[in-house]
Amino acid sequence: MSGSLIKFKKPPCISSWGTVAGRREEEGPLGGRFDISDNTDRFGKDSWEKSESEMQRMALERAILKAGMTNSDVDAVFAGDLINQCTSSSYGLMSFGIPHFGIYGACSTIAEGLMLSSAMVSGGIYRTAAAVCSSHYCSAERQFRSPLEYGSQRAPSAQWTVTGSAAFIVSESGVSFEETDNGEYLIGASGTGCYITEALPGRIFDSGLTDMTDMGAAMAPAAADTFLRYFAESGREPGDFDVIATGDLGLEGSRLLLSLTGDRGLELGPRYTDCGLKIYNLSSSDVHSGGSGCACSGLVLGAELLPRLMSGRIKDILLVATGALMSPTSVEQGGTIPGIAHLIHISSEKG
Amino acid sequence: MSGSLIKFKKPPCISSWGTVAGRREEEGPLGGRFDISDNTDRFGKDSWEKSESEMQRMALERAILKAGMTNSDVDAVFAGDLINQCTSSSYGLMSFGIPHFGIYGACSTIAEGLMLSSAMVSGGIYRTAAAVCSSHYCSAERQFRSPLEYGSQRAPSAQWTVTGSAAFIVSESGVSFEETDNGEYLIGASGTGCYITEALPGRIFDSGLTDMTDMGAAMAPAAADTFLRYFAESGREPGDFDVIATGDLGLEGSRLLLSLTGDRGLELGPRYTDCGLKIYNLSSSDVHSGGSGCACSGLVLGAELLPRLMSGRIKDILLVATGALMSPTSVEQGGTIPGIAHLIHISSEKG
Repeated sequence: MSGSLIKFKKPPCISSWGTVAGRREEEGPLGGRFDISDNTDRFGKDSWEKSESEMQRMALERAILKAGMTNSDVDAVFAGDLINQCTSSSYGLMSFGIPHFGIYGACSTIAEGLMLSSAMVSGGIYRTAAAVCSSHYCSAERQFRSPLEYGSQRAPSAQWTVTGSAAFIVSESGVSFEETDNGEYLIGASGTGCYITEALPGRIFDSGLTDMTDMGAAMAPAAADTFLRYFAESGREPGDFDVIATGDLGLEGSRLLLSLTGDRGLELGPRYTDCGLKIYNLSSSDVHSGGSGCACSGLVLGAELLPRLMSGRIKDILLVATGALMSPTSVEQGGTIPGIAHLIHISSEKG
Repeated sequence: MSGSLIKFKKPPCISSWGTVAGRREEEGPLGGRFDISDNTDRFGKDSWEKSESEMQRMALERAILKAGMTNSDVDAVFAGDLINQCTSSSYGLMSFGIPHFGIYGACSTIAEGLMLSSAMVSGGIYRTAAAVCSSHYCSAERQFRSPLEYGSQRAPSAQWTVTGSAAFIVSESGVSFEETDNGEYLIGASGTGCYITEALPGRIFDSGLTDMTDMGAAMAPAAADTFLRYFAESGREPGDFDVIATGDLGLEGSRLLLSLTGDRGLELGPRYTDCGLKIYNLSSSDVHSGGSGCACSGLVLGAELLPRLMSGRIKDILLVATGALMSPTSVEQGGTIPGIAHLIHISSEKG
């Protein structure tokens, strides 16, 4: 059947990762857990687009360093972002000299990159691959909505694009490292593995919605489609997971997802969360419905979920990263907002 | 070493393909060889962006039909285009219900898609995958340069974006088909296989050029880098190939490539050609330096190179599809135009 579940025969390992975040992210619940942050959101650059590229460079550099590798150990990189022609990735990563696969999955990009990296490593094509994504509030606002200087009002259902980048190294076997209490890391220390055991790429799902200020609702049907297919094909149940997380559905989209899956008899239960609800303090920030952007699921995965898995506190994570596949032009032309949702199962055991 | 050559242990087969072209392409040297064409360039749609999406839909539909398959036989599709947020692919292919990997390689997209499809099939992840790309002169002009109605003058070094789409089905084994003289095709007839035996993904190469009207020159150094790496690693020589083709360097870029490789002692020789020089009659058309766009190498591959290989007239094709990774925004901000060049070796034998 088209779109069947991928069960990796040799589950590859996420052996290291790097996270870079902006001011608002550093002030949120995950503050202090990012590898690098800059409270100006500029990262030393004179345009928001260049700042976003620089975050990708820093994130991959840090991930390679933490893995105890050099650039030439990485066989290929899968990278993407939200900016026109994916320039954040191209400019950000060109200095590494690593073969480059540009990918586009909107906010689901990091899951697409991890799936493809895992497939290449598990299939014996590569020993090591990297997945990188980024988003920046200021470059996204300028491109998708209006420049910040206009001071536009935001709708209550609107989400806040996360400023950050995350890079993950995927290898045949784990290069163990461990974070110490003061944020340093020990290469070679023992650690639990982070194995990608299953993947289910999403199908494009068009629910006919056209409201660019409510993208969570536009993406929720795609997430529901992926969850329903996964549980039907895998034979697993939501209770088999410690965390079931969507990428950036936000408040509106998460509620809709639970309604859509519940109607079909699938109860995701108390383990369900959304990365867009974890990255900011919704009550005290002006983020309305929650976080969004490629970096939303990337940063929550790298700064919270994987460290918890490495520490042994949780064992199985189901991440369904979500993306809205429209452009400002397509919406102006009356187009709908199709969604996509890519799933990966990360486990502390090879399964 | 990072970026080493991929030699597929089980070379997958391009088992069928579909090509869709516009008026100027139909009037060129390959006229009559496309599966579908429309001399209005509209394909029944009321915006150029929708026309481009419709070409992708038609190309994949035709490729699946010619393979004797149904949508559910295709495990995943790798698709991309030049339009912001890759909407030509997302809107064009969503009706198929096939799991979707969005890719971005600018004009090198079809080679990236064929590499990833091949890796997934060769690695045992999938039985069948599809690679799809598109470009449209009118949607590209509006987005990258200026709307056609402005009647802007074009520089002599400028290239003409090809209007078209190409879709390729990559499978474990060939589903043989044969074109008859009247353009029909016979499923199940005997045919020579089109095996993808090797692949070498490109590195991003920045030569510091900033002229958006001379993108061939900006991409040539990336193509040279890929050729030099390939011949150094593969142990092959240019004489081992019947055709060595770049994707869309055009007149300027092709000359520069031959100069750059010649300086390093690599003579590509009389077998070298560029898809951008094959798709139009350069002398009689207003295309200046040749064709460009994702569909340029896609259409030449599907309408000329693979049919010649299937007929037994040629045996080995080296295709290096080229892409320029800038955006209008990045160039306006003073950014350079980095290039990338992805290589695939297609052979009539499994190697």
